[in-house]
Amino acid sequence: MIPPTAGFTFRVIARDGHARRAVFETPHGPVDTPTFMPVGTQGSVKTLSPREVASTGARVVLGNTYHLMLRPGAQAIADAGGLHAFTRWPHAMLTDSGGFQAYSLSAVGPKSLVTLAEEGFAFKSHLDGSKHTLTPEDAVRVQGLIGADVQMQLDVCPPGDSPRAVVEEAVARTTRWAKRALAAPRRESQALFGIVQGGCFADLRRAHADELGALPFDGLALGGFSVGEPLARMHETLAEVTSTLDELRPRYVMGVGTPLDLLVAIRAGADMFDCVLPTRNARNGQALTRAGRVVIKQARYKDDQRPIDEACACECCAGGFSRAYLRHLYIAGEILCLRLLSLHNLHFYGEIVACARASIEAGRFDAWANRLLENMQEAGSTDAASGVHSPGGDAVI
Amino acid sequence: MIPPTAGFTFRVIARDGHARRAVFETPHGPVDTPTFMPVGTQGSVKTLSPREVASTGARVVLGNTYHLMLRPGAQAIADAGGLHAFTRWPHAMLTDSGGFQAYSLSAVGPKSLVTLAEEGFAFKSHLDGSKHTLTPEDAVRVQGLIGADVQMQLDVCPPGDSPRAVVEEAVARTTRWAKRALAAPRRESQALFGIVQGGCFADLRRAHADELGALPFDGLALGGFSVGEPLARMHETLAEVTSTLDELRPRYVMGVGTPLDLLVAIRAGADMFDCVLPTRNARNGQALTRAGRVVIKQARYKDDQRPIDEACACECCAGGFSRAYLRHLYIAGEILCLRLLSLHNLHFYGEIVACARASIEAGRFDAWANRLLENMQEAGSTDAASGVHSPGGDAVI
Repeated sequence: MIPPTAGFTFRVIARDGHARRAVFETPHGPVDTPTFMPVGTQGSVKTLSPREVASTGARVVLGNTYHLMLRPGAQAIADAGGLHAFTRWPHAMLTDSGGFQAYSLSAVGPKSLVTLAEEGFAFKSHLDGSKHTLTPEDAVRVQGLIGADVQMQLDVCPPGDSPRAVVEEAVARTTRWAKRALAAPRRESQALFGIVQGGCFADLRRAHADELGALPFDGLALGGFSVGEPLARMHETLAEVTSTLDELRPRYVMGVGTPLDLLVAIRAGADMFDCVLPTRNARNGQALTRAGRVVIKQARYKDDQRPIDEACACECCAGGFSRAYLRHLYIAGEILCLRLLSLHNLHFYGEIVACARASIEAGRFDAWANRLLENMQEAGSTDAASGVHSPGGDAVI
Repeated sequence: MIPPTAGFTFRVIARDGHARRAVFETPHGPVDTPTFMPVGTQGSVKTLSPREVASTGARVVLGNTYHLMLRPGAQAIADAGGLHAFTRWPHAMLTDSGGFQAYSLSAVGPKSLVTLAEEGFAFKSHLDGSKHTLTPEDAVRVQGLIGADVQMQLDVCPPGDSPRAVVEEAVARTTRWAKRALAAPRRESQALFGIVQGGCFADLRRAHADELGALPFDGLALGGFSVGEPLARMHETLAEVTSTLDELRPRYVMGVGTPLDLLVAIRAGADMFDCVLPTRNARNGQALTRAGRVVIKQARYKDDQRPIDEACACECCAGGFSRAYLRHLYIAGEILCLRLLSLHNLHFYGEIVACARASIEAGRFDAWANRLLENMQEAGSTDAASGVHSPGGDAVI
């Protein structure tokens, strides 16, 4: 039994197969899991106010350490009283370690701006080229200044097509960094999660889950998914691996995913998710609904006076904003469209996890999920507008 | 006595000098005047939801006929049940005639896209070059399809530096167009306002006010201000002319203005205003306050944990969003900043007209306005960031 950081508890209140419904208590209130965490990259869930984000059912928001440490800077956020006070988000928050963005954003361009060594990352800012380092200890310190409820260890996340030897080395280094992160001085009342790597090699994943499970982390994440691997392999690996993570701690699948991905992972025993998909797709004019994807600029919506989804209770749908109006706003470049679609898509994700929780409590997760998967496959065959990596209409539930 | 269109009444309930506090009843509810009308150019007050616009105290929103007739088209709006239903704005609406934009937007570029004749305007769309005409009768018909509560006659608005002969011809043609507008078949329960021109020639303005005042318009507007004339001349002309417009009907000063402009016009007896300044300045990162203009990107706000205005009750200030946070959002390109500043600036305008109404009722308009003007002049001398045409800190009240 790992003594958790003060202020945090994790209590499973219902199980259905590997799927579980739990309550993750944090210093900023309880989080019902499975839960979806909207992404507030730069201290704002794009286009939305904190009140609106909470109205979608979200009770944890994710902040990106890489972006925040470069702008406005971790010390500036600490001076403002931390990320909660700075952004006026009253519920729980989690920050990633910054490693993933340092690696992926800094590597853009003809010359890589990042170097990876045993000590940590050295990188140049994608904003102004300024030089920074990010060691496991730095990540703990910087996330301490930012002050979210949960921080993540610095990890090594290889691309999805990496050979086994590269993944093995990433796993080994991530373990060494895990121990350094746990040994670093940490702000009180801030939980620390470890990150299990191993790509789609289920044996590496299971071994890494055991290794990190032996360390006093407050939760365990699965990193290194949705990084270019085939979707079917990701789903297979999630199904094989998730339930081997310590059942007494929250399990967080990072950077995932589509509604279909969420169902697969919840069925496998995952509790927490984050992804830019619902907000990014919204800004590209795509609304996600039970009946398929609505690509709002399409001419077929020109005279469509119905809301995006007549059964939806979000401020966009229940507020009576029509597809015709949203299409007009989108084509005219009006920001209100991006707000309303972002609100709708996050509300849709909030409904998926709420329904998942209810179906687990009722012992009917599989029946609910199977019916949804069938609907998805049906709609997938007609949803020609599908644009993300998940085949078969990820937007249908 | 002019019998007003059914559903509209205008009742003055207090006077203080030329200033008056009245209630303009419309089919979509009463409007307390003096009132400021936020501009919803393309069917959206930029960045804001209808609920947010109403929260600033606004009870009339202005739509631009030129923009709406080109996109999504007046018939599309009619098919949606009119502009109220289309945009989900429950209170009163007014549309301009489209003439001003047809003239100014279509004329951009090396070859003018607009021709002006006795019959009306012929112009090419600034969006796609498509050809359109706009006669006084067209303007009535198109605004009928759009379906706001109040429509404006088509008028001729010469630039602010036009010679007297040009202004005289504009006045004469505007009168002929006024009669054609009134003779055109008009949708039931839609009021029609006439537009007084005359530039800064007070005698032409007064004569035109008399001419149009003799016609059965539901209200009278002063057009052709804020079109390039010197500020002092605009203020002088407003002071001389406004009170000569029929006192039994609403007086609307079009496209005006800064807080200082509003005070000058209200003192002169004006009731209604519209201007893009509060929302446009917000999108440029400028917040307007009693204590001066806050240009949010300035380094001095980097660690400023105060809201824009500690005494302000808007969702931005009362919600506790700090200058440091707003600056971060602005520099990071986050839409939430534009929303919060737009909300704040419209709330500030809402407070100005609410205070004007209260001070007129109390018989203290001059004392209130004079104190504000003094504050403005004081702050004007130190407000180096001033960016609009009004000298002396229009943003201070």
